[in-house]
Amino acid sequence: MANLSQPEATNLAAGQNPPPEQQLQDRLDDHAFSFSPITLKKLPHLSDYLQDLRPAGPNPLDHNPFFHPSDGFYVNTSDIVLRQVACRLSPSGTIASPSHHLAYIRAGPRKQIFFDHCATRAAIVTCGGLCPGMNTVIRELVVGLWDLYGVRQIYGIKAGYRGFYSIHPIELNPKMVHNWHRRGGTVLETSRGGFDLTKIVDAIENHGFNQVYIIGGDGTMRGAVKIFEEVRRRKLKVGVTGIPKTVDNDVGIIDRSFGFQTAVEMAEQAIHAAHVEAESAVNGIGLVKLMGRSTGHIALHATLSSRDVDCCLIPETEFYLEGKGGLLEFLEQRLKERGHAVVVVAEGAGQDLIPRTTAQKEERDESGNMVFLDVGAWLKTELKKWWDREHPHELFTVKYIDPTYMIRAVPANATDNLYCTLVAHSAIHGLMAGYSGFVTGPINANHAYIPLADVAQARNEVNIKDHKWEWVRSITNQPDFVKSKQNSA
Amino acid sequence: MANLSQPEATNLAAGQNPPPEQQLQDRLDDHAFSFSPITLKKLPHLSDYLQDLRPAGPNPLDHNPFFHPSDGFYVNTSDIVLRQVACRLSPSGTIASPSHHLAYIRAGPRKQIFFDHCATRAAIVTCGGLCPGMNTVIRELVVGLWDLYGVRQIYGIKAGYRGFYSIHPIELNPKMVHNWHRRGGTVLETSRGGFDLTKIVDAIENHGFNQVYIIGGDGTMRGAVKIFEEVRRRKLKVGVTGIPKTVDNDVGIIDRSFGFQTAVEMAEQAIHAAHVEAESAVNGIGLVKLMGRSTGHIALHATLSSRDVDCCLIPETEFYLEGKGGLLEFLEQRLKERGHAVVVVAEGAGQDLIPRTTAQKEERDESGNMVFLDVGAWLKTELKKWWDREHPHELFTVKYIDPTYMIRAVPANATDNLYCTLVAHSAIHGLMAGYSGFVTGPINANHAYIPLADVAQARNEVNIKDHKWEWVRSITNQPDFVKSKQNSA
Amino acid sequence: MANLSQPEATNLAAGQNPPPEQQLQDRLDDHAFSFSPITLKKLPHLSDYLQDLRPAGPNPLDHNPFFHPSDGFYVNTSDIVLRQVACRLSPSGTIASPSHHLAYIRAGPRKQIFFDHCATRAAIVTCGGLCPGMNTVIRELVVGLWDLYGVRQIYGIKAGYRGFYSIHPIELNPKMVHNWHRRGGTVLETSRGGFDLTKIVDAIENHGFNQVYIIGGDGTMRGAVKIFEEVRRRKLKVGVTGIPKTVDNDVGIIDRSFGFQTAVEMAEQAIHAAHVEAESAVNGIGLVKLMGRSTGHIALHATLSSRDVDCCLIPETEFYLEGKGGLLEFLEQRLKERGHAVVVVAEGAGQDLIPRTTAQKEERDESGNMVFLDVGAWLKTELKKWWDREHPHELFTVKYIDPTYMIRAVPANATDNLYCTLVAHSAIHGLMAGYSGFVTGPINANHAYIPLADVAQARNEVNIKDHKWEWVRSITNQPDFVKSKQNSA
Amino acid sequence: MANLSQPEATNLAAGQNPPPEQQLQDRLDDHAFSFSPITLKKLPHLSDYLQDLRPAGPNPLDHNPFFHPSDGFYVNTSDIVLRQVACRLSPSGTIASPSHHLAYIRAGPRKQIFFDHCATRAAIVTCGGLCPGMNTVIRELVVGLWDLYGVRQIYGIKAGYRGFYSIHPIELNPKMVHNWHRRGGTVLETSRGGFDLTKIVDAIENHGFNQVYIIGGDGTMRGAVKIFEEVRRRKLKVGVTGIPKTVDNDVGIIDRSFGFQTAVEMAEQAIHAAHVEAESAVNGIGLVKLMGRSTGHIALHATLSSRDVDCCLIPETEFYLEGKGGLLEFLEQRLKERGHAVVVVAEGAGQDLIPRTTAQKEERDESGNMVFLDVGAWLKTELKKWWDREHPHELFTVKYIDPTYMIRAVPANATDNLYCTLVAHSAIHGLMAGYSGFVTGPINANHAYIPLADVAQARNEVNIKDHKWEWVRSITNQPDFVKSKQNSA
Repeated sequence: MANLSQPEATNLAAGQNPPPEQQLQDRLDDHAFSFSPITLKKLPHLSDYLQDLRPAGPNPLDHNPFFHPSDGFYVNTSDIVLRQVACRLSPSGTIASPSHHLAYIRAGPRKQIFFDHCATRAAIVTCGGLCPGMNTVIRELVVGLWDLYGVRQIYGIKAGYRGFYSIHPIELNPKMVHNWHRRGGTVLETSRGGFDLTKIVDAIENHGFNQVYIIGGDGTMRGAVKIFEEVRRRKLKVGVTGIPKTVDNDVGIIDRSFGFQTAVEMAEQAIHAAHVEAESAVNGIGLVKLMGRSTGHIALHATLSSRDVDCCLIPETEFYLEGKGGLLEFLEQRLKERGHAVVVVAEGAGQDLIPRTTAQKEERDESGNMVFLDVGAWLKTELKKWWDREHPHELFTVKYIDPTYMIRAVPANATDNLYCTLVAHSAIHGLMAGYSGFVTGPINANHAYIPLADVAQARNEVNIKDHKWEWVRSITNQPDFVKSKQNSA
Repeated sequence: MANLSQPEATNLAAGQNPPPEQQLQDRLDDHAFSFSPITLKKLPHLSDYLQDLRPAGPNPLDHNPFFHPSDGFYVNTSDIVLRQVACRLSPSGTIASPSHHLAYIRAGPRKQIFFDHCATRAAIVTCGGLCPGMNTVIRELVVGLWDLYGVRQIYGIKAGYRGFYSIHPIELNPKMVHNWHRRGGTVLETSRGGFDLTKIVDAIENHGFNQVYIIGGDGTMRGAVKIFEEVRRRKLKVGVTGIPKTVDNDVGIIDRSFGFQTAVEMAEQAIHAAHVEAESAVNGIGLVKLMGRSTGHIALHATLSSRDVDCCLIPETEFYLEGKGGLLEFLEQRLKERGHAVVVVAEGAGQDLIPRTTAQKEERDESGNMVFLDVGAWLKTELKKWWDREHPHELFTVKYIDPTYMIRAVPANATDNLYCTLVAHSAIHGLMAGYSGFVTGPINANHAYIPLADVAQARNEVNIKDHKWEWVRSITNQPDFVKSKQNSA
Repeated sequence: MANLSQPEATNLAAGQNPPPEQQLQDRLDDHAFSFSPITLKKLPHLSDYLQDLRPAGPNPLDHNPFFHPSDGFYVNTSDIVLRQVACRLSPSGTIASPSHHLAYIRAGPRKQIFFDHCATRAAIVTCGGLCPGMNTVIRELVVGLWDLYGVRQIYGIKAGYRGFYSIHPIELNPKMVHNWHRRGGTVLETSRGGFDLTKIVDAIENHGFNQVYIIGGDGTMRGAVKIFEEVRRRKLKVGVTGIPKTVDNDVGIIDRSFGFQTAVEMAEQAIHAAHVEAESAVNGIGLVKLMGRSTGHIALHATLSSRDVDCCLIPETEFYLEGKGGLLEFLEQRLKERGHAVVVVAEGAGQDLIPRTTAQKEERDESGNMVFLDVGAWLKTELKKWWDREHPHELFTVKYIDPTYMIRAVPANATDNLYCTLVAHSAIHGLMAGYSGFVTGPINANHAYIPLADVAQARNEVNIKDHKWEWVRSITNQPDFVKSKQNSA
Repeated sequence: MANLSQPEATNLAAGQNPPPEQQLQDRLDDHAFSFSPITLKKLPHLSDYLQDLRPAGPNPLDHNPFFHPSDGFYVNTSDIVLRQVACRLSPSGTIASPSHHLAYIRAGPRKQIFFDHCATRAAIVTCGGLCPGMNTVIRELVVGLWDLYGVRQIYGIKAGYRGFYSIHPIELNPKMVHNWHRRGGTVLETSRGGFDLTKIVDAIENHGFNQVYIIGGDGTMRGAVKIFEEVRRRKLKVGVTGIPKTVDNDVGIIDRSFGFQTAVEMAEQAIHAAHVEAESAVNGIGLVKLMGRSTGHIALHATLSSRDVDCCLIPETEFYLEGKGGLLEFLEQRLKERGHAVVVVAEGAGQDLIPRTTAQKEERDESGNMVFLDVGAWLKTELKKWWDREHPHELFTVKYIDPTYMIRAVPANATDNLYCTLVAHSAIHGLMAGYSGFVTGPINANHAYIPLADVAQARNEVNIKDHKWEWVRSITNQPDFVKSKQNSA
């Protein structure tokens, strides 16, 4: 059906030829198509700069009393994961867009390791805001290092990056972390900022850490890149790995980040409450602000799950309030038809619409991010002003819910706990194998190793040209603000 | 590290060469590798056997008042999804195992459709056991047909296949299905068996249905293939699609089936209860039987999520009770060390170990499946007998939990509701585009169309050579029954 | 031990006499004590002003096909419930404080009824804010009237009091309300204000309603009293009953109001999230605002349930920020000791501390209540200002959670659903028996009928002299603001 | 309306007199009625048998840094709680049934205590099956003893009664029990049996315990009475208190036992699942067995909460299967009308109907209770046999759910956690005040002290003459087996 939008499509109706779709299928059946060349993403390894580095020996799993690795158990460099799985065939029967044909090294235990269990001294740190599953990742790092590789020196860095140089590390062991996967938040405590490269790498050296596990968001990952580079510059035998923690799911390359599914489940409950409030009122609007500074994934997924949302506003699309095709016109219509409406707004949406004082324009948070204004509170006020102006004598209610802390503080659900387990074990296997400066995460459901620098730059935005966003639009029948804007212009 | 298991690996320790891993990486950097030819799976289309079939016109989404399809919105035959994303590079730098390089047509709305909204008459049926999300799928089929394609004749077939010819269909509309996605079970009712091909296709003709949506398990899908073939034989303009429903997640090709994630969440709660019971007793064993007749996915995922399981038994691996390396020896050890243990067993595990009467050997259920014996009850009895024999004067408790109906009767969680929404809309788009005899489901997270016959045969077993199963073993340190068996032989 | 606080207590230590406690017990054993006279609260009855009123006949439950009322089934006026169950014996062996010895008529079906099922025409209205269980009460009123008394004319008044005269009533039946007890909010919709006595009673007459069920808070109950009085003035055969709905549990006389237990469960979750946020931060404070304008029951109960709260502020007690014994000093101490703290504040607490503009001083909501300022937002700001002033260079985090709408919009839990069932059936039995102007609710766990006017005035405050509040203090060791205030004065 | 069942009632319809109800009310208004004498239940006190016992001093709460007890804070012997609050007035205006007019001493802190904090050595033991809240009670005992009374020697006895003499006690402190109220089960472990009076009291003496907190069911309470009596016989200064733990809520005198509300919430979920299974099948029956050996409280409450139950069978009422008015006839009717049915059966119901082998007739469990046969499994089999016999060619499904361990292993909900907190603190205050041989629990919502011996004998059965059970019958319209039985005789 590739050509249906071309002129030939008109012939189709006339029925003189087999449908072009069939033509393509037939051709494909006869001649299987071929793929463009694929580029494998190279991973930094300690041996890149430590010339004399030698393996410490075979993986201790070989001698595990219970566990007899089968032939296929160990992963090696020839095990790869393709990133691009959805493609468009070119008319010639080859696959278009070769630029995306990247492959990554698969994660997993290696036959040969570069750290002796006695000499391994691991540090774990959590940075940034809370996200369901942080404690599970910490727990699994401890349990995995201890049980699989016999490591006994495992330390938690308290309170984020600043903890490296300002607080004494705490020793961790399996007994201590026993139930942590059932607890929200991070027992290690977290904070924003506090990144002082020299102090941190000095502290790593002074404490004798040779494996550093850094759990945090995009700002934290950028810091991890610098730590990795400084470690390499100093030629330290220290492996550095990052585990992306972002409840917003805004990290690129990987399928999704841990805690995201849990967040969507909780967000759906908040939307449900907003719907009940809206339905139970006369001209009731339920307004829910969900996490998502630069991306609207939580809003999008919770909207698609809930089916009670009338309009979903995300950072990736613009919207406007007044005039033809605007939000207010749309809500007016919905209230008329149904008596209530539910609006979901991601925290990063509409930032350009909210009046900002000069001070606000310059403010930055500790991670250097622009301070976001509260789009939910603003929208609530605007909606009330609008109704008072247009319908001064009619009832109207806006119930505004900001469930942020009730979402991100819960323990991970089973799906996310499983994810955290796999990602923690992958990270351990990677560092043990001598890799450094990498991130571990699932690519098309296969856990892979990705260069830290790539992940620190990649951003996972909602593709509003893609079907999922169109589906939201087809489901909510919400206005297509961009188009209307053009029309009204 | 590809060659580490080869003889050259020994050189590695001698350190004379750069690590072979580096060699491979370097080579890959220089010369990007290429992919073997890929085969696209052809999809049946009504025009295959209806020579005079003409499109009914452009997709009505073109004229949706709110919704302005962007350029990339419509999917066409050249949009494909690759199935195999994790590969192993051959020494020559090409990808091995070409046999798996299959591609599928991507799901989604097509520019041209073959059913006029006035002439479309859709039937929806649910067969087999319950699974979270069935009502969501039904709801979304109704809402999608109604809202997106303007279809007004939508019917529910009651009580499974037999309902086609024995019960009057019930008319469905969006208002009626409004809250169904928050309800467990299936409002249409379901049953096993009742498959009578002639009667069913006669009924389809008599009722004038031209779109048939069949929701069910592997037996149901095999029935759907036959319906599709009979429809084709009779040269009816009737599209037939299957939506795989299997809480066990035992359907192949697709990533997972709907309801599975919800089931894992609930299963994890049952395991947690078993763990509490075991921990609170003296020599307490918590035993949980989970769904999974031919595959142990629920058991595997719940075990990996819960982290409280000492041994996970699934149909894909054998186990034995007595002797060295057996389950009893293992449990003896665990009770000694920790005072309690948790065992998870999938319902299909150990079927060959349970003594079976002659009658039981021949019994079949209504879908023709062999009747499974209750491995949980059997194991509970065996454990008690063992303890009474070995430790007659010591306390011992087995708490056996069979949470099956409490798991499968709950509503879908947000993750599964989203899945159900996407899969239902994909099915509609596919039938509207004139495809038939297909299944819709996610392949590497991209919804695709797959020939029904392929899905009906494919089985999704736990790959016990794969890392996930090894992870269970590394986590629980449970015995490797196969190997021990060989040793003891 | 009654005299231990008297001078004789000193003798005790000297050991010359048997402990005074024993003396009292001995006396009580010998001479059982007697109770002061008890006053039974009279209930209005239609026959009070309708001289010719005659019973419509025996209760139709007599002829129920399945249901054979036993001898004790019917309740009559001699069945009473005592209100005061905890008393203090006077030295003379009688019970002190006779003023509280009130008794109420027990709720339940009566042998004789005053409404014929054909002639009964019932109206149900919900007013004020949401509360878990509203839909259950409506459902049970419909089902109870229909199934037990054969009533077929049951109407829902939409959108609160104003619905009587401005919106057409909707007919209700058991099928329609089938699943309502699983839904939050009120399907009938609700609103504040709109109370116009003449219009409402005119509408009751015009629609021919003779049973009016009014579900709402204290303002609504005061309206119900006026409706009852106007109905009586007009000598209409119209029974009026009120069902107190207050998530705050601020209605007096009755044990508790429906939805309260559900609200406490949800509030505890919000506190838990605040605790996780606080624990995971450096100098983290979790601040939760809970419902409770004039009473702190939700805050009190959730605090006692959660055990993670450091300070619980309720309207019944004053508090202050600055100086010795103030909140800030206390928090400083807790952060020092534990690194984090959790503060729970009821929305009505500290209203006199928040600076109020002249406009705010005069503002009233639609129910005539003074507009409450947001104590949570104010406290959050004050805490930040304090820390910036006192510890400008130290990390500090306040996470503020306002879970109000996520609490009150959920469906009732099992405990509250049971309550709603009993209270709805009690209300029906009471009106059928010819009573009017009453409220139904549990008194010491026995459902009773209480004069509407009494309930409309009664307020259920937290008794801060009582043990439960002392328990909070003993548990949290929070400052005793009043006492410290006196000290510092 | 007191006389409506008397002959005069016929006059009523004739209308010649004011309704008798009014007569009674008028009389009551004029002459307030009086109460019969009340008997206060005496409580054992250490001073009963220790003649030289002297108070250890004032309550240390007097000198608590934060906590300034108000005048009314301390409870004394003159603070009592009435048990009987629902009464029937006699024709003469006095209250009938004087035998029930009992009063109990109110629980709470006393001004004078008999244990010095340094010399106090407390032991806590849990016996019998699991119940939500056990860990909360333990936690609160530890925290209360530590924080309020400065006790530092607190020990947990492991594995029930046998732990006193066979396992070394474990030391407990607030840090250790920090999160226990969020955990199901009992960290101290529990077991049945193992009661050896001499060994236990010897162990109490040898370990130097002087406060013993015993948490368990009715068998355990009977053991506690014996321990108390033996301690008294030996004239030991050891306080013994029992905290009734029974998820069945079968302990008398007290309002309810801890964990019961949580159990009802979970039971309601199991019923809901059964309802979904039944609704989704053709002639589907959902069968749920709930805890309750001698009483049907959980079944009753869950039925009243759920509203989806067609028949609720409890130990307090007989039922039968076959014949007119039997269960099978009733289910036949329901399946015909609605296509499905839900049956709830308490585990102790129908024990006399199940065929029992000679061995089964004599079997006893470790606590000496008669072994219960599985009424759920029996009923499931009987239902299938019946259908196969009566409707051999029609579809039929019974889905049987036994949620026992998934109910009793969960953590307590907020309501129960609050209960556990209050009951634990009450127990501490009671022992500290020198009382012994008592139980603490709420009577009409006021925590009171009750003689252990009374509680050990009292059984809390569902009063099937009472309104709550009639309500079940009026709600489910289930058959009145007793009456029908008589009819069919």
